[in-house]
Amino acid sequence: MVVGIIGLGLIGGSMAIDLRRRKFADRIVGTDLDNVNAAAALKIGLVDELVPEDECVAKSDIIIVAVPVSAAVKVVCRTLDRFQDEGWTDKVVMDVCSTKEQIAKATMYHACRKQYVATHPMAGTEYSGPWAAMPNLFDSKVCIIADQEESSPKAVEEVVKLYDALNMRIGYMSVSSHDVHTAYVSHLSHVVSFALANTVLDKEKDEKHIFDLASSGFSSTARLAKSNADMWTPIFIQNKENIVRVTDAFIQKVQEFRDAIDAMDETAIRSLIDEANRIKRIIK
Amino acid sequence: MVVGIIGLGLIGGSMAIDLRRRKFADRIVGTDLDNVNAAAALKIGLVDELVPEDECVAKSDIIIVAVPVSAAVKVVCRTLDRFQDEGWTDKVVMDVCSTKEQIAKATMYHACRKQYVATHPMAGTEYSGPWAAMPNLFDSKVCIIADQEESSPKAVEEVVKLYDALNMRIGYMSVSSHDVHTAYVSHLSHVVSFALANTVLDKEKDEKHIFDLASSGFSSTARLAKSNADMWTPIFIQNKENIVRVTDAFIQKVQEFRDAIDAMDETAIRSLIDEANRIKRIIK
Repeated sequence: MVVGIIGLGLIGGSMAIDLRRRKFADRIVGTDLDNVNAAAALKIGLVDELVPEDECVAKSDIIIVAVPVSAAVKVVCRTLDRFQDEGWTDKVVMDVCSTKEQIAKATMYHACRKQYVATHPMAGTEYSGPWAAMPNLFDSKVCIIADQEESSPKAVEEVVKLYDALNMRIGYMSVSSHDVHTAYVSHLSHVVSFALANTVLDKEKDEKHIFDLASSGFSSTARLAKSNADMWTPIFIQNKENIVRVTDAFIQKVQEFRDAIDAMDETAIRSLIDEANRIKRIIK
Repeated sequence: MVVGIIGLGLIGGSMAIDLRRRKFADRIVGTDLDNVNAAAALKIGLVDELVPEDECVAKSDIIIVAVPVSAAVKVVCRTLDRFQDEGWTDKVVMDVCSTKEQIAKATMYHACRKQYVATHPMAGTEYSGPWAAMPNLFDSKVCIIADQEESSPKAVEEVVKLYDALNMRIGYMSVSSHDVHTAYVSHLSHVVSFALANTVLDKEKDEKHIFDLASSGFSSTARLAKSNADMWTPIFIQNKENIVRVTDAFIQKVQEFRDAIDAMDETAIRSLIDEANRIKRIIK
């Protein structure tokens, strides 16, 4: 099996590591628009060969599109066009993006739609680039396959085998419910961390030593604020409607806390905290 | 040296572990209003003996008050009263609370004020109780000694020795600037995590499987939402003015993100994220 990876960053690179050592891929070819990233990916050994995008598609049985979601929409469509032009009916293309609606819309009426599988492996770190790639990144995490009925059973089966090799637990979901869920449990956390970082960094302009007291609590809450703009700007834009709605709900919750504290209403504060403590059931 | 610990939870218990094995304390006596916690602390071996509070003060050279800040105000004052009544001029009492202004006010004119040292070891986890106590909790973290000039040099010296044994880096700060700093780098993170947890838990009422996709990013941002109400309710009340001001600044920052996303203003979103990325300088 030849695997082609378009976008050799954290996700593409980490997939390369495990797909190779777990013998899913006999050969991995890849491409990245950024020359430094591409050269590093080759030097680190993530790919066997660097090739242009069209050659990557031509040489591979399965093509993983692991670029920011704004670019992914174009790359997936271009790849499906190529399948159609060349009459390649056995190849499969998949993306790994965190919002799915725009790719779903863009591919909906494509003659080769069935050869595309929409996936979202829910794994990552706050770092990016091929140097952030690591083994075992996906182990035991959840991967969503979205709108599976739009893909051919054979294409889905190939992709499931790939995620099995990555030790992921697979869930199925519609594109629209995927985008609502990720707004809540992933995208909102990023908005919150970015805003928290900006609040304290702003204060630092007057108070040089504000971070001297930063505890591990702050580091944990603000960790995602290190995430990069190339990836997150298009996610925020493409999942705009859900994220705005969820952020409004969050502002409301912060306001409740703020008002209870302002009123020094011990009962209200205690009950808001007790309610939040129910998260123990979810996160270990 | 006999160390007395009033409040055998995460902080008091973790101090006990390291003060004993690093030979700062020859003997540790302790007390806790909660009988289950007290019995567990004895059984785990955090203390050599359980004693009532007055006996704890009588038997110890240095008394650590490690109870929630609402109770700490009373315990510190009661201990200073006792020093005065008994003519104990060599004993030292210290608290470990996360807000300092109310204890500072309550002790300000006490005849034995110089025997009290206001401290805040910036370490902890989201867990509580003696069973959450752990070795090395304080290693390399920062401890603030607040308004040191109000304490006698000898009392400060004793307390510095104790924190040296815990491998903490000591910083000095006024009570008021301590309370502003902690509002930014600790208390706000807690408000944010609690509110984030409540937002998603609320959504769970309609969407049972909302947490199926919860990633490690969500877990990190919401981790502090496991923190307990007994500790955090009085902190929020006692540091109300700073926390309300900081929370307002945070809501403003979230609103900026929300508005940039709503407007699909790529340049604005990108610049807010780039700004937040400067946090890399601070958190590893």
